[in-house]
Amino acid sequence: MPFRFEIIIKDRSSKARLGRVVTDHGAFSTPAFMPVGTLGTVKSLTPEELVEIGVEVILANTYHLYLRPGHETIGRLGGLHTFIHWERPILTDSGGYQIFSLGDLRKISEEGVTFQSHLDGSLHSLSPEQVIEIQRILGVDIAMVLDECIPYPSPYDYVKISTSRTTRWAERCLQARREGDPALFAIVQGGMYQALREESARELVGMDFAGYAIGGLSVGEPKALMTDVLGWTIPSLPENAPRYLMGVGAPQDILEAVMLGIDLFDCVLPTRNARNGTLFTSSGKLSIKQAQYAEDKRPLDEACRCYTCQHYSRAYLRHLYHSREILSSRLNTIHNLFYYTTLLTKIREAIQQGHLTDLRKTLFSRQNDPEREDPTITDATTGIM
Amino acid sequence: MPFRFEIIIKDRSSKARLGRVVTDHGAFSTPAFMPVGTLGTVKSLTPEELVEIGVEVILANTYHLYLRPGHETIGRLGGLHTFIHWERPILTDSGGYQIFSLGDLRKISEEGVTFQSHLDGSLHSLSPEQVIEIQRILGVDIAMVLDECIPYPSPYDYVKISTSRTTRWAERCLQARREGDPALFAIVQGGMYQALREESARELVGMDFAGYAIGGLSVGEPKALMTDVLGWTIPSLPENAPRYLMGVGAPQDILEAVMLGIDLFDCVLPTRNARNGTLFTSSGKLSIKQAQYAEDKRPLDEACRCYTCQHYSRAYLRHLYHSREILSSRLNTIHNLFYYTTLLTKIREAIQQGHLTDLRKTLFSRQNDPEREDPTITDATTGIM
Repeated sequence: MPFRFEIIIKDRSSKARLGRVVTDHGAFSTPAFMPVGTLGTVKSLTPEELVEIGVEVILANTYHLYLRPGHETIGRLGGLHTFIHWERPILTDSGGYQIFSLGDLRKISEEGVTFQSHLDGSLHSLSPEQVIEIQRILGVDIAMVLDECIPYPSPYDYVKISTSRTTRWAERCLQARREGDPALFAIVQGGMYQALREESARELVGMDFAGYAIGGLSVGEPKALMTDVLGWTIPSLPENAPRYLMGVGAPQDILEAVMLGIDLFDCVLPTRNARNGTLFTSSGKLSIKQAQYAEDKRPLDEACRCYTCQHYSRAYLRHLYHSREILSSRLNTIHNLFYYTTLLTKIREAIQQGHLTDLRKTLFSRQNDPEREDPTITDATTGIM
Repeated sequence: MPFRFEIIIKDRSSKARLGRVVTDHGAFSTPAFMPVGTLGTVKSLTPEELVEIGVEVILANTYHLYLRPGHETIGRLGGLHTFIHWERPILTDSGGYQIFSLGDLRKISEEGVTFQSHLDGSLHSLSPEQVIEIQRILGVDIAMVLDECIPYPSPYDYVKISTSRTTRWAERCLQARREGDPALFAIVQGGMYQALREESARELVGMDFAGYAIGGLSVGEPKALMTDVLGWTIPSLPENAPRYLMGVGAPQDILEAVMLGIDLFDCVLPTRNARNGTLFTSSGKLSIKQAQYAEDKRPLDEACRCYTCQHYSRAYLRHLYHSREILSSRLNTIHNLFYYTTLLTKIREAIQQGHLTDLRKTLFSRQNDPEREDPTITDATTGIM
C-alpha cells in the first residue's frame, strides 16, 4: 500500500488538522509525536512497551545507523523493522542535523558532505543520492532528504547559499528515488529570514514531495522567532501533505505548533529528560533528584495512568536515580513518553471535538513552570551522540 | 503464616532434595536460585519481568539498603516489598560479605563491625543486634546473621578466632529476634579447615536456626576445595532445614552442590555477565561482542524460549552492546536469568523423576567450555558495588 495522508477534520478556531498517515507498516494518527530511537532503540524501552505506551511511529537516524552497524548490514538482516523488532512505521532523519553538529569535522560542497565519524574519526562522504540509497536499504516508511541544518544566528548571505544548495540536494534526492522507495519528505530551511523561508518552501513544493518538514528550528533561537518562521512557512505548504516540525519540542511548543498547522513532531526531550531525572507531570516538571521526594509515597503524577505511576513511589524512583540503576531510566522514560502520547491524544480529541482553544487554556494552567522549555542547547552540543 | 520448609522428595542417587519454602509472601520451590537485587532492583528488570522469567525469590542486601536509602526510610514507606513493588519472598544478606570486602575501611571487634561507607566515607558500626533490627524494619522473609566472610587463604589461627566470633554473633542475632521477625539463617564459616567447619556447623545447629548457609566459599579457592568444604559441612546440618550456599555460582557448580544437598543459591554471575555481554546458552558461553555475530540472524540460543531469543538476533544484540544501549543490559539479563531459572526447573524435575545423574551427564555435554566458571575474583573485588 503506498504512502497516503488523509485529513479527517480541520479545526475551526486554528489551523490544526486531525489526520492519518498510512504506510506499508500500518497507519498513525496526526498530530503525532515520534520518540527518538537514534540507533534503532528508543533508549531503555522494548517495542512492546512503546506499543503499550501508545507510540504509533518512531524516528531513527540515518547517519548513526550508516556508521553503526551499517545500513548494508541492516539490509542483509531483513531491514530496520526486522532488525529492531518494531512493526509500526519508522521515519529516518537523513543525518543532516547530526553531520552539521560535527562542526570542524565536516566539509560541505555542492556534491554533498564529507565528515569524520564521531566513533573512530574515519572519513566518510554522503551525497543526496547516497542518503536515499541508505534509507531505501534500511527499508523505512518515511525518508528525509539530505539538508544542511543552519546554525543560529547565521548571516543572510550564508543562509541564502546554504538554503539554495539544500533545495538542489532535495531535487537530487527526488531524482534518485525509485519505485517502492520510502515516502520522501523535503526539509524547508531559510534560517530566520522570511524571504528565504518562503523561497525554500515555494521551490520544494514545486517538486511534489510526500511531506514537508521545517528544519533549522529549535537551534537556540528565541521562542518568538520559531513562531514567526512557522507563520512565514506553513502558508506556502500544501494543505494535503503532512507537515513535520523537526526537533520540537516542549509540550507547550507542540500545542502551539499544532494550532499553526503542524502534523508531526520529534524530540529527544521526553527520553533524555527521563534519563536525567526530569519528569513531565500535570503540575509541571519534577526533578526526582530532590531531597523532598526521599520519603514521598506518591506516584510521579496522581493523574497519570502509566505503568510507573501505577506501581512506584517518588521515593523509590529517587532511590533508583541516585543509585544510577538502569531501572531508573526505564521507569522515567515510560512515564515521560506516556505523558507525550497522552498529550497528543488530548490534542487530537480536542480537534475532533472542536475544543482545542479550551485545551490550550486548561492544559498548562496547573503547571509550576509555565515558561518555555529550551532543550536546544543540549541538543546542539550532543547532537552527534 | 510462619516460615516453613518441606522436603517433597529425596533423590536416591545423590543427596539432592526437592523442597518447598513457605513464607508470608508465598512459597518457592527448592533447589532455588535467587537473582541478586542488591539495592532493591535486580539490575535492569521490572518485577513483572522477573515473574515472567520464573523467578520466585530474590536477594537484596542489608548493607547497601542500610546506607541508601536507609532501612528506616524503607520502613516508613511500607517495607522493602512495597518499596520495590515485589510481592514474592525476599532474602537479605546481612552485609557481612560487603563489609569485609571494604578491607582497610573496616574494623572488627567482639561488639561488631565499624566501617566507612563506600559512598561517602562516613563512619558506621553494625552489631549483630542492629543487623537483626535492620532486617526486621525492611520486613523481609529471610534474614541472615552478621558474619565475617574470611578471605582465602587465611591462617588457621585467624580462621579459628573469626569463626568462633561469627558463632557468638549468630547467638546474639538469635537472642535479638522478636516474634514476627523474618526467619533467621545462620552462616557456617571455618575457612578451608575441616575441624573448624565441623565445629561451626555443630555449634550453630545447636541453636536452632530456620536455615543454614555456608559462607566463605567462592572467594578464590580452587574448585576441589569447595567440594571438600561442602562434604565436611553438609553432614552436620539438619535434614529438615534449608541449606544455602552463598555466592555460588556457575551452572555446573550449582548442579554439583544440589547433588551434595544444597537447596538455595545466589550469585551475581548471570546478571553481571549479562551486562558484560557474556551469555549462557545450551552450547556454552557466548560473548556477544565478537565480530562473528555482526550479521548473525540467529537468536542467542535456538533452544531458548525467553523473550530475547524469541524476538532478537545476535546481530542486534551485538549492535546494542557495542552502542552501550540500555536495552542491551535488559535483553541479556532476561536471557541469562531465564537460563538459570530453566536450569533450576530442570534440576527439580530431574529430582522428581529420579533422573538427576542423567541430567548431569547430558546438561553440559554440548558445551564449548566445560571448565568451571570462576566469578570469585570479580566478586571479591567489586563486592561493595
